[in-house]
Amino acid sequence: MKFEFSYAANNVKNTEIVRITEMASHIEDLIPFTVGLPAPEVILVDELKIIIEEIVTTEGLRIFQYSSPKGSIESVLRDFLGKDNIKVEKENICVITGALQGGFLACRALISPEDWVISEIPAYSINLQNLRMHAQRIVGVHMDEQGMVTRELHERLKEMVKKGKKPKLIYTIPDFQNPTGVTMSLKRRKELIEIADQFDIPILEDTPYRYMRYEGENLPSLRKLGGDGGIHINSFSKTVATGLRVGYIVAHPELIKCFVAIKTATDYCTPLFNQMVVERFLKKGLWEKQLDILNKVHKKRRDVFLKALDEYMPKVKGLSWNKPLGGTFLWVTLPFDVDMDSLLESSIQHKVAFVPGIDFYTEEMAKTAPPAMRLNFPYHPEDRICEGVKRLASAVKSVL
Amino acid sequence: MKFEFSYAANNVKNTEIVRITEMASHIEDLIPFTVGLPAPEVILVDELKIIIEEIVTTEGLRIFQYSSPKGSIESVLRDFLGKDNIKVEKENICVITGALQGGFLACRALISPEDWVISEIPAYSINLQNLRMHAQRIVGVHMDEQGMVTRELHERLKEMVKKGKKPKLIYTIPDFQNPTGVTMSLKRRKELIEIADQFDIPILEDTPYRYMRYEGENLPSLRKLGGDGGIHINSFSKTVATGLRVGYIVAHPELIKCFVAIKTATDYCTPLFNQMVVERFLKKGLWEKQLDILNKVHKKRRDVFLKALDEYMPKVKGLSWNKPLGGTFLWVTLPFDVDMDSLLESSIQHKVAFVPGIDFYTEEMAKTAPPAMRLNFPYHPEDRICEGVKRLASAVKSVL
Repeated sequence: MKFEFSYAANNVKNTEIVRITEMASHIEDLIPFTVGLPAPEVILVDELKIIIEEIVTTEGLRIFQYSSPKGSIESVLRDFLGKDNIKVEKENICVITGALQGGFLACRALISPEDWVISEIPAYSINLQNLRMHAQRIVGVHMDEQGMVTRELHERLKEMVKKGKKPKLIYTIPDFQNPTGVTMSLKRRKELIEIADQFDIPILEDTPYRYMRYEGENLPSLRKLGGDGGIHINSFSKTVATGLRVGYIVAHPELIKCFVAIKTATDYCTPLFNQMVVERFLKKGLWEKQLDILNKVHKKRRDVFLKALDEYMPKVKGLSWNKPLGGTFLWVTLPFDVDMDSLLESSIQHKVAFVPGIDFYTEEMAKTAPPAMRLNFPYHPEDRICEGVKRLASAVKSVL
Repeated sequence: MKFEFSYAANNVKNTEIVRITEMASHIEDLIPFTVGLPAPEVILVDELKIIIEEIVTTEGLRIFQYSSPKGSIESVLRDFLGKDNIKVEKENICVITGALQGGFLACRALISPEDWVISEIPAYSINLQNLRMHAQRIVGVHMDEQGMVTRELHERLKEMVKKGKKPKLIYTIPDFQNPTGVTMSLKRRKELIEIADQFDIPILEDTPYRYMRYEGENLPSLRKLGGDGGIHINSFSKTVATGLRVGYIVAHPELIKCFVAIKTATDYCTPLFNQMVVERFLKKGLWEKQLDILNKVHKKRRDVFLKALDEYMPKVKGLSWNKPLGGTFLWVTLPFDVDMDSLLESSIQHKVAFVPGIDFYTEEMAKTAPPAMRLNFPYHPEDRICEGVKRLASAVKSVL
């Protein structure tokens, strides 16, 4: 049988993150800076296991049954978000199966096939896939060291409205962005909200790294600053455990109602057992405990990573990197004439891997994008970080 | 902010199943025949808890980390499906977060917004939502006591092809269908495959109840009979535990590749821990053990249910029901002049609930559909079944 795929399917592809990480996993001693994982040592494995044993001991059949599609840990999430000044009522929150499901639900609810959307560029590649599957066109807005360039956003919006293509949402990761590690400044946050309000467009705020800050003060979320129009997504993947697949989406009740209907049809509910693990982790204060350890370890590893880059990378014009204040990624920009395919190949030969920057661009913007690498900095122990950066530097030298 | 929803969102609604079940849960002593659950007593809760303890004791950090998007229990699934004569290689299976995700992935991969699809009618309402969200039109094909009426399917297909609207898939639950409990006969299975082959259209075979047969011999799956073009979906929700959200989709490698890319963007992976629970449940032979108990208990309860219907329901023309050979549902057809809203209201007053048949129809076919009820028969203990049917009979009498 010859299969005919939908437009959505023809627009989606396996991301380089998955492809390179899987390829790298088959090469012995390779150091992958590809993954989006926190330091594995910080995870309170024993405490998580105790929680599971407690659930198994104290709860009955219920742990193996359906959750309501909306989720079953509303009250603990309300307290949790309250500490971050995000007000949540029963009507404006839904538990999701990982943060990506939030991106999917927002896209499915708001974007029809002829619609356009706006995304900061570079942007998290897997959510770019979500946007690609749903929208006719993704209009990119560049980022600088302060986050999305709001002046450019304003220009793009004016052009789009003139064309009758008012975008259906504006996608951003304001905190320690994936892939660049950049955090949107307070000034930019306020400008973004002002512009979104002016044009009446919902902001899709994806915040998986929000609480992983290693220095400086937390900035208010767009949801807090902008009020009821914002869609706020987070998960416990980075701060409790990636494999649990428990997150939440906060939005206007009208949107949540729609998200719940779509979620019901696509996975019915997030596993109740997994929700209960998160609930207990939060109630016991383990979330704060683990985050405190995580932030200390990550800060140290970031500094080791930066020092190694300073030490090993060749001193050439056009080769630079940033100092992220949190999260798990840093972004290395390379001279314009570097061939990224050759660099990736050479890196694999040197037993190190990264995700090429191009993976985080729309096709349109890729043409003018500088060669770049996304590097995860906190996953490996310090000696492996040093060794990995050394190898990466050799690979870079080999293609200059 | 005024939200503008996508076409998909405007086509989706909360199903009556969720709405009525949630409403019913707030009324004391109400007997809901609404849910799609197996008898809770048959679930091997202690064995499941032991499995969880074993995983916690013997495994490390891994249990809290990402699975690959494709899933991590391929080999045990291959053996499992082999026993049902369904051949599976690494390339043609993907683990999914419950069977509904399979319906979603198939729709998203194959249906563009202007496309038409075919579904047996009545059909599982939540997957009808999936079809509604993706397709321009759902063309229904009636069912009789042998399953989808293939002669009608053939007619519809000829008309559709003439209109240039060859459907993108044919949706069916061949085994103990939701909502009718009907099983597609072998003759019809062969005819369906022949027609699908002739018109070159993939069959979406949804089989959540496949192994819950209480009498008679198992029939070969459409995937087995039809070969590589078929999309075969099942989950362990009904035979292990509903809350685990672990299922699988079997299809051509080209389709699986696309499903995995879409799954990656929508929930990244099915929780690894939950996959491991299913893996050990299967490896220990507990699946067969639980299924054996389940099938015996369900058979008994079905017979009690049927006897109660015989005893309590008024003997009037147009009121009839079927005898399902497996699964969890039976289907009661009512006289044409019965007002279903009044019947539902009266039932709630009588402290019993059902899902109205209309929930399982397309709008187009609803106009000519006889009033009907979907009743879950195995969830309640025998005395509650009798009491529930008695109440339901009183409600029916009150609206005749």
